[in-house]
Amino acid sequence: MNAEIIAVGTELLLGQIVNSNASYLSKELALLGIDVFNHTVVGDNDKRMREAVKIAEERADILIFSGGLGPTQDDMTKQVLADHLGLPLAVDKATEQKVVQYHADMEREMSENNRLQAVVIEGATVLKNETGLAAGMYVEHEGKKYILLPGPPNELQPMFDNEVRPILAKLTEDSDQLVSRVLRLFGIGESQLAAQLETIIDTQTNPTIATYAEENEVSIRITAKGQDQDQCNQLIDQMEKQVRDIVGDYIYGVGSETSLAQVVRDLLVNKDYRLTAAESLTGGLFQSSLVNIPGLSLNFIGGLVSYSEGIKESVLGVSEETIEQYGVVSSECAEEMADKVKEMFDADIGISFTGYAGPKEVDGDKAGIVWIGLAVTGRETQTYYYHFGKDRNGNRKRSVLTGFDLVRRLLLELPSQKK
Amino acid sequence: MNAEIIAVGTELLLGQIVNSNASYLSKELALLGIDVFNHTVVGDNDKRMREAVKIAEERADILIFSGGLGPTQDDMTKQVLADHLGLPLAVDKATEQKVVQYHADMEREMSENNRLQAVVIEGATVLKNETGLAAGMYVEHEGKKYILLPGPPNELQPMFDNEVRPILAKLTEDSDQLVSRVLRLFGIGESQLAAQLETIIDTQTNPTIATYAEENEVSIRITAKGQDQDQCNQLIDQMEKQVRDIVGDYIYGVGSETSLAQVVRDLLVNKDYRLTAAESLTGGLFQSSLVNIPGLSLNFIGGLVSYSEGIKESVLGVSEETIEQYGVVSSECAEEMADKVKEMFDADIGISFTGYAGPKEVDGDKAGIVWIGLAVTGRETQTYYYHFGKDRNGNRKRSVLTGFDLVRRLLLELPSQKK
Repeated sequence: MNAEIIAVGTELLLGQIVNSNASYLSKELALLGIDVFNHTVVGDNDKRMREAVKIAEERADILIFSGGLGPTQDDMTKQVLADHLGLPLAVDKATEQKVVQYHADMEREMSENNRLQAVVIEGATVLKNETGLAAGMYVEHEGKKYILLPGPPNELQPMFDNEVRPILAKLTEDSDQLVSRVLRLFGIGESQLAAQLETIIDTQTNPTIATYAEENEVSIRITAKGQDQDQCNQLIDQMEKQVRDIVGDYIYGVGSETSLAQVVRDLLVNKDYRLTAAESLTGGLFQSSLVNIPGLSLNFIGGLVSYSEGIKESVLGVSEETIEQYGVVSSECAEEMADKVKEMFDADIGISFTGYAGPKEVDGDKAGIVWIGLAVTGRETQTYYYHFGKDRNGNRKRSVLTGFDLVRRLLLELPSQKK
Repeated sequence: MNAEIIAVGTELLLGQIVNSNASYLSKELALLGIDVFNHTVVGDNDKRMREAVKIAEERADILIFSGGLGPTQDDMTKQVLADHLGLPLAVDKATEQKVVQYHADMEREMSENNRLQAVVIEGATVLKNETGLAAGMYVEHEGKKYILLPGPPNELQPMFDNEVRPILAKLTEDSDQLVSRVLRLFGIGESQLAAQLETIIDTQTNPTIATYAEENEVSIRITAKGQDQDQCNQLIDQMEKQVRDIVGDYIYGVGSETSLAQVVRDLLVNKDYRLTAAESLTGGLFQSSLVNIPGLSLNFIGGLVSYSEGIKESVLGVSEETIEQYGVVSSECAEEMADKVKEMFDADIGISFTGYAGPKEVDGDKAGIVWIGLAVTGRETQTYYYHFGKDRNGNRKRSVLTGFDLVRRLLLELPSQKK
């Protein structure tokens, strides 16, 4: 069974946005054991959309569309498809009610074209949109399957996850199962990782193993084929053990949705430690990443963005002497920042970030020099030196992740404080 | 004249990487006035690649390939195309020399398959690869043009820039120019915007106008065709004026790379105002967005992440009475937070964020209720109430952007303090 992904939208053809939906869907379809042999992108154009559908019908069993389900004139995916299939359109009452209610709640005037988002192809299984208004659709017609999803990724992904995956899983029930596990690593580069895992990589059959580099991290994907999930997972367990024996120290978590911030959050909550931060170059990014996930307010109570030199002294209380003698980007300053913010927020752990974010035009050769301070109750405050690259936002992100990894490793050592 | 972009690579169909090359090329082609009506992705498969080429030849004048030029077994783009066109392959001596030299310099053993990267379609214009080894190609054959580029973006982009652009510019010399301008809006939904611009949208010919929804923002793209850039810009100016007459209040900037944070930053620097923030639910995201761009440290000196209730009192100084009487998510608390942080950081403007980020499971119906406080020297502190959605990170991002828009509008009113 194979699928073709058809992304609809002139903005894609103008290069205004990247087709991330195709990648997301491809990954998910691969896990379901469904082959994808073609991606297609067409614009908001009736004729060319029809042509794309006809071509796809020649070579795919499942056609998955993203985009073109909105309320404007350019949105025509369901209209074109309905006409092509010779099926009428109809209003889905539940979706219509939701659209009307949304505008009432927001105390916002609703223009009539919004109702279009509740129009579906007659006979379709309506796919609920939890994060937006436009209804998705699943249509079976003359042996082919058509799935219509909204364009915005934050609407498409939950809809696929909740509504489409069960449908496709049922379609592929009798095929081999594919199960993937992703190991997440920090602190090692991809070519080094590939070199260390060379033997495993060269001798792989089932499971398969592949390394991927992301910004500042690497991951390992182990994929097993088998008759059922259990058999797959057993094969993966074996290979995972081999991998951990070699590079286990760098593995911080499992799962493609896991993040260093999430792992730190879980450790803070489970071991009941309070964390605070004083951020200079990172400007709030560390703390912001931490509060992505709810349920943290007992263990992260707040922190400081001490962006300028003056604020480090006046608000945070770093001594004038320290700054005059060593400068703000120094081991001494990082140490004091960590100690002071820990005290100010009455925390168990205080982390500080000070450095030259760059770019090169602003900070010259100093761009990328970062000190991270880590103060812990009952231990000597440590400071860590890094010399990253020249890219400002790259340095900020890398500093934040490095900070999270330091806190993670620290928390793994510390005893639990949970009562 | 139109082009089709064909990206080659099974890793794309497995969703391992995103097709950023198609976006890059589309943007560049649009600027050259070359229409792109289709993107296609195929895997490292002879048969399906040929099919894609045949389909593209039916509908495009220019076929641009990315990927499949490397030294491994999976790399077959030039071989498949040469065979399809009935042209032989030949070794390009200059490229071969470069490949051999590279390995000698690196003291690296060169496996013979590396020489493949110097093989080109006979008669092709060889496109030099400045950042990698594989040669690119430009082939004219029976009225069609074929451009073969390497997959890695850091090889493709310079090759396009240096080698391909001049060729395409020559091809389009006598054609019309295409110029686009993007207007950025905040505070209005896409369907409302489309409704207000209905007349302009319905009567468009040249320029064309389209609306796009992004997360929390909308944009308007006006694209004009003309003999030269000046003529295009004049046409765009006329339509932009019509648009501003209707929805100008929501337009915060021009350009697809512009952001609310950037606009606020520029206003802070140009009018010389100091800004600080006390962030609760947003957790540092507002401040972090501000420091994305360098050069701000005189106008943003720092701020607070006052995540928990206790910190609002102990560090920020919000009175216990206020919190007991009104709660932390209230107009009164937002007002005091803004006043206190402005005082603490000795700023001209203090902004505060307090609310229930959600999700629904945590905050129930209160999810999405946000108060933003805005304190300005010499003015009465204002507070603003919002009821956003149920998505935690959506609410945080939306709060941040709403905060930026409030600061933006405020700064537009205030007189410059610059000496």
